[in-house]
Amino acid sequence: MKATAKAHTNIALIKYWGKRDESLILPMNNSLSLTLDGFYTTTTAEFREDLTADRFHLNDRLVDGTEYQRVTAFLDRIRRAAGRPDVFADIHSTNHVPTAAGFASSASGFAALAAAAAKAIGLQVTDPELSMLTRQGSGSACRSIYGGFVEWEKGTKADGSDSYAVPIAPKDHWDLRVAAVVLSSSEKKILSREGMKRTVETSPFYPAWVDNIPDDLAAIKQGISQKDFEKVGEIAEANCLRMHATTLAASPPFSYWHSTTMAIMQAVQDLRVSGVPAFFTIDAGPNVKVLYLPEQEKIIRNTLQEIPGVHDVTVSRPGEGVSYI
Amino acid sequence: MKATAKAHTNIALIKYWGKRDESLILPMNNSLSLTLDGFYTTTTAEFREDLTADRFHLNDRLVDGTEYQRVTAFLDRIRRAAGRPDVFADIHSTNHVPTAAGFASSASGFAALAAAAAKAIGLQVTDPELSMLTRQGSGSACRSIYGGFVEWEKGTKADGSDSYAVPIAPKDHWDLRVAAVVLSSSEKKILSREGMKRTVETSPFYPAWVDNIPDDLAAIKQGISQKDFEKVGEIAEANCLRMHATTLAASPPFSYWHSTTMAIMQAVQDLRVSGVPAFFTIDAGPNVKVLYLPEQEKIIRNTLQEIPGVHDVTVSRPGEGVSYI
Repeated sequence: MKATAKAHTNIALIKYWGKRDESLILPMNNSLSLTLDGFYTTTTAEFREDLTADRFHLNDRLVDGTEYQRVTAFLDRIRRAAGRPDVFADIHSTNHVPTAAGFASSASGFAALAAAAAKAIGLQVTDPELSMLTRQGSGSACRSIYGGFVEWEKGTKADGSDSYAVPIAPKDHWDLRVAAVVLSSSEKKILSREGMKRTVETSPFYPAWVDNIPDDLAAIKQGISQKDFEKVGEIAEANCLRMHATTLAASPPFSYWHSTTMAIMQAVQDLRVSGVPAFFTIDAGPNVKVLYLPEQEKIIRNTLQEIPGVHDVTVSRPGEGVSYI
Repeated sequence: MKATAKAHTNIALIKYWGKRDESLILPMNNSLSLTLDGFYTTTTAEFREDLTADRFHLNDRLVDGTEYQRVTAFLDRIRRAAGRPDVFADIHSTNHVPTAAGFASSASGFAALAAAAAKAIGLQVTDPELSMLTRQGSGSACRSIYGGFVEWEKGTKADGSDSYAVPIAPKDHWDLRVAAVVLSSSEKKILSREGMKRTVETSPFYPAWVDNIPDDLAAIKQGISQKDFEKVGEIAEANCLRMHATTLAASPPFSYWHSTTMAIMQAVQDLRVSGVPAFFTIDAGPNVKVLYLPEQEKIIRNTLQEIPGVHDVTVSRPGEGVSYI
C-alpha cells in the first residue's frame, strides 16, 4: 500500500484558458504543452488502515488548511475509484520546483500525487485514465503524465471521460530550451482560477479565443512534427498574447503583466529583429518563459539577465513523463 | 479670400478604431472625445489666383513631401466643394501642440485648416458640414470642430454624408483635467493608420470591439450628463484596454505599449486603490493620458512625474471648438 512517483512540470504553448465545468475541471479548449526536465515533484503515498484521516507533508512539513483540503478531496476520488473508502493516506511530497523559477508546482504536484496514490492503493489505471484522474486535482497537471510535447484533449462528454492528455512527440524528438524568467517583484494580483473564471464569464473576446484554438493547434502540431522553430515560436507567442488580450476586455478588466513583463517581451522581440530566434510565452502571472534553440544559450541568458527587474533565469530542457521510484 | 481659424486637439474616451472606408475616412464605430484647451493649431489660409500650386508653411517652415501631399489633397476637396478648382492657397499653420505633449497634431491641424480654408474660399458651411469636411482630412479631427464632449457619429451611408461630429456637453459643463504623460523613449513602431488596418483585417477580437461600442457610449453619455467621474473614468479606461487588446490578437500581433506605459497604468490603478480617483486612456502610441478631478492636481502630478521613464507631464482642461480670428 505504498508507492513513490516522480512528475515534471510543463509549460503550455497553446494555453488552457477557461473551464466548462468547474468541479470536474473540464476545459473550454484543447491545450498543448512541453514537459520540462528542470522542475519536478517526488511523492510517496502510503495508505494505512490505522489512520483516521489523510496526512500531507510537503517538503517535510505537515500541511493543513486549503492546500490540505485540496489534497484530501483528491484522495477521496482515488479511494472511490479503488472502492476503498476506508483507508487514509500518509503523503510525503518534495517539490524540486525552485520558488524562484516561477512555475506553479500544482502541475508536477498533482501528477506525482495521482500516480503514487493510484499505485499505492492498487488501482490499475492506463495512462489516459491516470491523466483523467490527475485532471480532477489540477487541470494542467493532466499533461504532466507524459514527457515531451503533450496535448490535452478537452473532450465533449459531461462526465469528463474523454478529457485527458495524449502524447504528441517524446522528449528526445527535439532539443529545445525554455528559460524561466522570474521578476524581482512578481506579486500576483489575481489568482489564475479567478482570472480564468472572470474572463469566461465577462470578456466579449472570449468566444473568439475558443474559436481560434483549432487553427493554432493544427499549425503548431505541424511545426513540432517538422521541427520548424519559427513556426512553433510564432504560434506559441501569438496564442499567449491572445490569451492575455482576453483579460483586458474582462469586466472589470485586468492584466497579469508588470512593467518588467513588457520589458522582457520587448527584449525577446528585439532579439528576433537582431537575428536571434526566440519567442516568449506567459502564464497567468507576470513571469515570462522564453523558448529558444540550444545554440542561442549564451546570448539568451545574457540578454535576459541584464533586463532591470529580472530576478532569476533558470533554463530547462524537454523532460520525461511520470515515473515510479 | 483670406481667413484665420484656431482649433484644439481632443482626446478620445471612446476610441475611433477601424475604418469602413479608407478613402472617405468613415469609421467602423462611433467615438466620443473631450476637446482640450492646452493644445491647438492656428491656421491662415489665403486663396490667390496668381498661385499655380498650394504652399503649406508649418511653424514658419515650407513643407513638402507626404505632409504637403496630404494638405493639398484636402484643399482639392475644399476647391471642389466651392466650385473653384482654379485657385490655390497659401497656408500658414502654427502648432501649439508641444511635441513633448505626445498628442498628434493632425486633429487640431486639420480642423483649423478646414475652417480657415472653407471661410477663405467663401464656402458657406454649417458645423456638421465643416465636421464632415474635416473628417476627410483626418478622422479624429472632425471632433475638434466642437468644444467640450463630442461624439463622432459613424453614419451608415456609403458617401459619408451622415458621418460627422455632434456636441454632447460644452466645455463649461464639467471641469475635468487631463494629464498628458510622455515617455522618454516614445518611439512608435507601428503607425496608427497601419495598426488600425491590420487589426480590422486580421484580429478575431475586432468584431466584438465594434459590438461593444453602443453600450459603452450609452453609459459614458449618462456618466457625463450626471458628472459621475467614476463611471466616466471606468468606461474610458476599459474601452482603451479593449482597443489595445484587439492589437494583441492581430496577425502578426503587436502592441503600442512600452514597459513605462505599463508602469504608468499600474501607478494609476495604485492611486485608485489608495483612494485617489484617476483613470488612464492611451491612443495608438506609448504615451498615456490621465483623467482626474481638479482637487487631485498635486498628487497626480507628483505621482506621474516620479515614474522612471516619464519625460514630461502636461495638464489640460476642457477646451473650446473652432473659432475664427
